[in-house]
Amino acid sequence: MPTSMVEYEHASAEVRAVYDDIMTTRKTDWINNFWKALANDPITLKRTWESIKQIMAPGSLDPLTKELLYIAVSVSNQCPYCIASHTASARKKGMTDAMFHELMAIVGMANETNRLSAGYQVPIDAQFM
Amino acid sequence: MPTSMVEYEHASAEVRAVYDDIMTTRKTDWINNFWKALANDPITLKRTWESIKQIMAPGSLDPLTKELLYIAVSVSNQCPYCIASHTASARKKGMTDAMFHELMAIVGMANETNRLSAGYQVPIDAQFM
Amino acid sequence: MPTSMVEYEHASAEVRAVYDDIMTTRKTDWINNFWKALANDPITLKRTWESIKQIMAPGSLDPLTKELLYIAVSVSNQCPYCIASHTASARKKGMTDAMFHELMAIVGMANETNRLSAGYQVPIDAQFM
Amino acid sequence: MPTSMVEYEHASAEVRAVYDDIMTTRKTDWINNFWKALANDPITLKRTWESIKQIMAPGSLDPLTKELLYIAVSVSNQCPYCIASHTASARKKGMTDAMFHELMAIVGMANETNRLSAGYQVPIDAQFM
Amino acid sequence: MPTSMVEYEHASAEVRAVYDDIMTTRKTDWINNFWKALANDPITLKRTWESIKQIMAPGSLDPLTKELLYIAVSVSNQCPYCIASHTASARKKGMTDAMFHELMAIVGMANETNRLSAGYQVPIDAQFM
Amino acid sequence: MPTSMVEYEHASAEVRAVYDDIMTTRKTDWINNFWKALANDPITLKRTWESIKQIMAPGSLDPLTKELLYIAVSVSNQCPYCIASHTASARKKGMTDAMFHELMAIVGMANETNRLSAGYQVPIDAQFM
Repeated sequence: MPTSMVEYEHASAEVRAVYDDIMTTRKTDWINNFWKALANDPITLKRTWESIKQIMAPGSLDPLTKELLYIAVSVSNQCPYCIASHTASARKKGMTDAMFHELMAIVGMANETNRLSAGYQVPIDAQFM
Repeated sequence: MPTSMVEYEHASAEVRAVYDDIMTTRKTDWINNFWKALANDPITLKRTWESIKQIMAPGSLDPLTKELLYIAVSVSNQCPYCIASHTASARKKGMTDAMFHELMAIVGMANETNRLSAGYQVPIDAQFM
Repeated sequence: MPTSMVEYEHASAEVRAVYDDIMTTRKTDWINNFWKALANDPITLKRTWESIKQIMAPGSLDPLTKELLYIAVSVSNQCPYCIASHTASARKKGMTDAMFHELMAIVGMANETNRLSAGYQVPIDAQFM
Repeated sequence: MPTSMVEYEHASAEVRAVYDDIMTTRKTDWINNFWKALANDPITLKRTWESIKQIMAPGSLDPLTKELLYIAVSVSNQCPYCIASHTASARKKGMTDAMFHELMAIVGMANETNRLSAGYQVPIDAQFM
Repeated sequence: MPTSMVEYEHASAEVRAVYDDIMTTRKTDWINNFWKALANDPITLKRTWESIKQIMAPGSLDPLTKELLYIAVSVSNQCPYCIASHTASARKKGMTDAMFHELMAIVGMANETNRLSAGYQVPIDAQFM
Repeated sequence: MPTSMVEYEHASAEVRAVYDDIMTTRKTDWINNFWKALANDPITLKRTWESIKQIMAPGSLDPLTKELLYIAVSVSNQCPYCIASHTASARKKGMTDAMFHELMAIVGMANETNRLSAGYQVPIDAQFM
């Protein structure tokens, strides 16, 4: 059976603290199922959220670029939940249709050339070492 | 045995035309092994190059962002050649150490949460549909 | 169209013999869809069941550990059917919530560090060779 | 440390019987490293060889087509050993350069469209159900 | 939210031209969702279709073999849409039940031995280099 | 070019603190390349080490079982570095040859049945939901 979702009203203080931080950080008033599932294991919930919060914060790469990278990985891995949730996040952060189309084209092509290089057993050029 | 590399001096006119376009487009004076391997099949060489040229051209996403996305996919797929070549390309287009570190952190984390969502069998939120 | 399921009452003697052995070995009175689908190809049904039976039997590793390993692979591969069925089997063999949470944490982290080692192009230490 | 290879002269009678069957079936006079590594676990060696022997035998699909399929999977999975060994086997069974090039083109494209369908979250058509 | 499907009656002339070519080439009177989703990006629609049309045309490998290879990749990648659509295409091109069963057996076994060779860290034989 | 390794003698105090904790926790006197590569990004080094330390500590699952799970994931993902390093760690924690052989058999079989369930498009049983 799939994991039960831990709703805010039934959550422990420890879990609520994470939920509150997620909503504050993301300027939103709801928690998506990924976190409600992880909340069954408060330690993993806390560690994962703190890691995500640190990693996805603005840095040398802007938040939208970071979401696009997240989608690229999720699509390569065929993860339906992650594709749905990060596509929604990227839209919220400004991903236009044109950006999405270019993103998909790159992800598709990279998956293609990854296999061409493997199948042709291409040796790494000295210039890249 | 791995594919033999088709060097410029032994290449057909058809292959040389692609090599010339690669060097002109990329403002470089050498051809990396990926293309020299594909040149054994001139049709695939031409189609792949033309697709890459179209996809990686500046658009709604800038060329450096596109290289970062290429790396994200290649790392998720464990493709040593592609990681080496696209990391080199990204450096040439301005990827700093700080950008590379953030990129790796995102790719790692996305691969982690992709599996957490699968393992916990998280249902897609209505808000994402 | 998805494969039709071969129900016990319509199965050949050859298929029934495998079904009977599955139910006896697993001390259960029903056959799950994986086997009912494979039963369309009795040769693969028989070979796969005999392999599974041999591999999952108690040995140097206990049956619950074996189920946890099965889940770890299935989650990494994003296989919804296998995640659902082996999570149920592991529960039946004694997997507690705490074990499941630790399992998920490891699977997530291993998927992350697998990519960090690839992306950073880490050379294998002499000590590991 | 990588697994040590079990050479014929140091192999048990049980392992030699499998080695002999491999050489007879494949009409060859040497054993490749995959089997020499598996021979550290004679049970897995025997089960794997018998499964391979059954699966790769001529059937509704001819032996060359079967090798091409093996390569397609191995390339998608980025398995260097399997790509090298099955490409060699396919060559021996008659794979021409033209066939190899078409094979690579399909494997590359399938990996691309697999991701496009995932990224665009394409619903399965009623006609395919 | 998943991509909206571009129906023929609302499609631009550019998209209709691709749809018409798909239907003519495949001797069919409908367009499956993959293309209707890609049609949101007419450039990718056109490039992908032209690549597929070139790659899947009869060559050194016959069209049915090409579909089997497509399925092998799609199954290895756990892509539900691609498995459903290419299994339907292969059936239409003559894939029998026996062929499908042999295909699945090979794909399963190749995915198994790919991991055995990785896990046992098998070095590539000199004969394969 | 691959990442340069940060040796202890050239490391910052921040990095040395992590290195010291790794050596103390693991009761060892050297640092393997994975950490020396990550040390180029002290933030990721620290976060990753602290996560690993928390996750791999004894809990409901014992440390050896945790290493076996790490190997299972690394083999499924075809990650040479991770396979080499975690196989070495598992040996150190007591993995016998017999355990390793059973582990490999399960990882191989799980990768096989993951694809059989996908290719046969097996619906999840109501009992597993």
